[in-house]
Amino acid sequence: MRTYQDIKEQIIAYRHHFHRYPELGNEEIETTAFIEQVLKEHAIRILPNQLKTGVLASVGKGEKVIVLRCDIDAIAIDEDPNMELVSLVPGVSHACGHDMHMAALLAAAILLKEREEELTVRILFLFQPSEENNEGAQEVIDSGVLKQADVLIGWHNEPDLPLGVLGLTNDVFMAAVDQLTVEINGEGGHAGYPHITKDPTITAAYVMIEAQSIISRKLNPIEAAVLSFTTVHGGSSWNSIPTQVRLEGTIRTFSESARELLKREIRQLVMRVAANYDCESEVEIFSGPAAVKNDSEMVELLMPALEKKMRVIEPDKVFAGDDFGFYQEVLPTLYAFVGTGCGTDWHSPNFLVNDEALETAVNYYLTCVETLQEYWQSN
Amino acid sequence: MRTYQDIKEQIIAYRHHFHRYPELGNEEIETTAFIEQVLKEHAIRILPNQLKTGVLASVGKGEKVIVLRCDIDAIAIDEDPNMELVSLVPGVSHACGHDMHMAALLAAAILLKEREEELTVRILFLFQPSEENNEGAQEVIDSGVLKQADVLIGWHNEPDLPLGVLGLTNDVFMAAVDQLTVEINGEGGHAGYPHITKDPTITAAYVMIEAQSIISRKLNPIEAAVLSFTTVHGGSSWNSIPTQVRLEGTIRTFSESARELLKREIRQLVMRVAANYDCESEVEIFSGPAAVKNDSEMVELLMPALEKKMRVIEPDKVFAGDDFGFYQEVLPTLYAFVGTGCGTDWHSPNFLVNDEALETAVNYYLTCVETLQEYWQSN
Repeated sequence: MRTYQDIKEQIIAYRHHFHRYPELGNEEIETTAFIEQVLKEHAIRILPNQLKTGVLASVGKGEKVIVLRCDIDAIAIDEDPNMELVSLVPGVSHACGHDMHMAALLAAAILLKEREEELTVRILFLFQPSEENNEGAQEVIDSGVLKQADVLIGWHNEPDLPLGVLGLTNDVFMAAVDQLTVEINGEGGHAGYPHITKDPTITAAYVMIEAQSIISRKLNPIEAAVLSFTTVHGGSSWNSIPTQVRLEGTIRTFSESARELLKREIRQLVMRVAANYDCESEVEIFSGPAAVKNDSEMVELLMPALEKKMRVIEPDKVFAGDDFGFYQEVLPTLYAFVGTGCGTDWHSPNFLVNDEALETAVNYYLTCVETLQEYWQSN
Repeated sequence: MRTYQDIKEQIIAYRHHFHRYPELGNEEIETTAFIEQVLKEHAIRILPNQLKTGVLASVGKGEKVIVLRCDIDAIAIDEDPNMELVSLVPGVSHACGHDMHMAALLAAAILLKEREEELTVRILFLFQPSEENNEGAQEVIDSGVLKQADVLIGWHNEPDLPLGVLGLTNDVFMAAVDQLTVEINGEGGHAGYPHITKDPTITAAYVMIEAQSIISRKLNPIEAAVLSFTTVHGGSSWNSIPTQVRLEGTIRTFSESARELLKREIRQLVMRVAANYDCESEVEIFSGPAAVKNDSEMVELLMPALEKKMRVIEPDKVFAGDDFGFYQEVLPTLYAFVGTGCGTDWHSPNFLVNDEALETAVNYYLTCVETLQEYWQSN
């Protein structure tokens, strides 16, 4: 039976292939085909699923079911062409490192397939689509494949942790991510006659500015949260006041109480500010994944085993999100960061991972499986 | 020799034709062809010109040259389809009434052609393109055709004046119209990490709001002026803070001192606010036409003659502009409003003129010609 070191070159080659051919969420056609091809080459059983893209595969038999999850989508960011390894798809790149996630899960699948005889549990390999759009996890849940599962294991690369270090905590990892849309509807008209319009540009400006005080004045200052406006669009002619200005943004919180507070306050604020300037308003908040937080029993069970195999530290929480947060609402989960030590920012054009960190990720998957299997056998 | 009453039905038919087939500025191909066709049918001499669209024609001979001007372009506004007379071109309409202006100038040309033997001056008929874009008047000036001209006569329909009334004043009619572009350049990034971005959305919001106090705190309150922001655009992704927000707007003033003050203050304010939020900024101000104001000697000369022929009142000044303002910088001009009594707003989808007001406009042209000719003969 081979170890990770024996297949390392092949796994790194997979990662580089994924990196060169990134695909956006729910469009991961070639990525899906490539994963299936690798699994078939290793005689790993591919399961039918209800997903448009993504792969579900399994090894082993048993009453207990462990899901090992990775995400497979890329994002709409033009990679810095001066990088050593560059996306060949203009405008799309694996600037969040999901190429690394896929390669690690393929490695885990290959190594566990070779140990299938020893397995007393069933392992599902979930190559989840469309994480960046906050769609994939919910689609997986809705497809029903998790109904038989006992635990789901996931992770994300973390450029701010040292190479090969595992970040694991009982506390929150990543923020709840909600998407905000604000429409300010006024009455447009001639730019020289502001008094007979209801000007949505000024109203939108006041909304953006007054909203700053929600974090600074309404939220308990010991809590951390973000409210960002990210797009603002209104008007098509330099000499006409527009009828509508549309804002998008995001609310990011670590606690449900902060999340509810911010949602309530922004709704009230927009209504109040719009009324001040005789405009109508509409606020839509699309609830994204909850803050990523581990199941306490899973941490208690798996942390000691992981600490024997690798260096484990308490990571800083981050205001990024992962739609992994949806899984923890339906089954026990464990989430970890795998340090790459690269220091670059997620979603930046020069984002990097480090192939040497793949081993930690594969080890994390295998250690979780081994520990859970032992635990269930002896309990 | 016919009077306006004799050709009235034909002139109204021309107006309705123009209304059905509106064309945008510098695209008035069919409009130009139609005007030339009518002029040819009446044996009126069409002069070569350097303009892409628009027509220059002449009748009479003499040392002195009077230019009678109208504008011929339509605007990008979808006319209310329930109107009695509707544009047949989707998205384009004569919502500023230039159809009426053209019909009146054709009437003046036809009637003056029939009186050509009596003329001791030369009349140029200027069907000017692209007024709405603030381009046409400058193109006419640049083409050199006004070098031999002694005076230029123009007018605009005014829905807020009673039908058939002429608005004429020695004071300012219409505002100087300057076009404003503001770029706020920050540093974009992940919406959950505002502290490592330089957020141009908040900066743009403060620019829009702080700019309100330029009018209220910097301008002498006895003066009237408008500073409107009309478009605001930034960002393309709900979860990324953008790098740039771009604002457009307009500055409208009646005096050169107010115009200079507002230009200076907005430049300073944008630079100051951008610096507050660590952003870069760029302000561009495209100087449009000056405030429309008559030549005092022309008013003194022509007002008494016009008052004998029609009801003349002092009009309210308006914060719309007319690129007629460019002409007054190169030769003596007279500008008037012709009341249509329609009460609808310029540039609104249900804008109206009244065909009965055409007679006042034609009378205005003819009275100016007659009075100037008499004046020059006796001086």
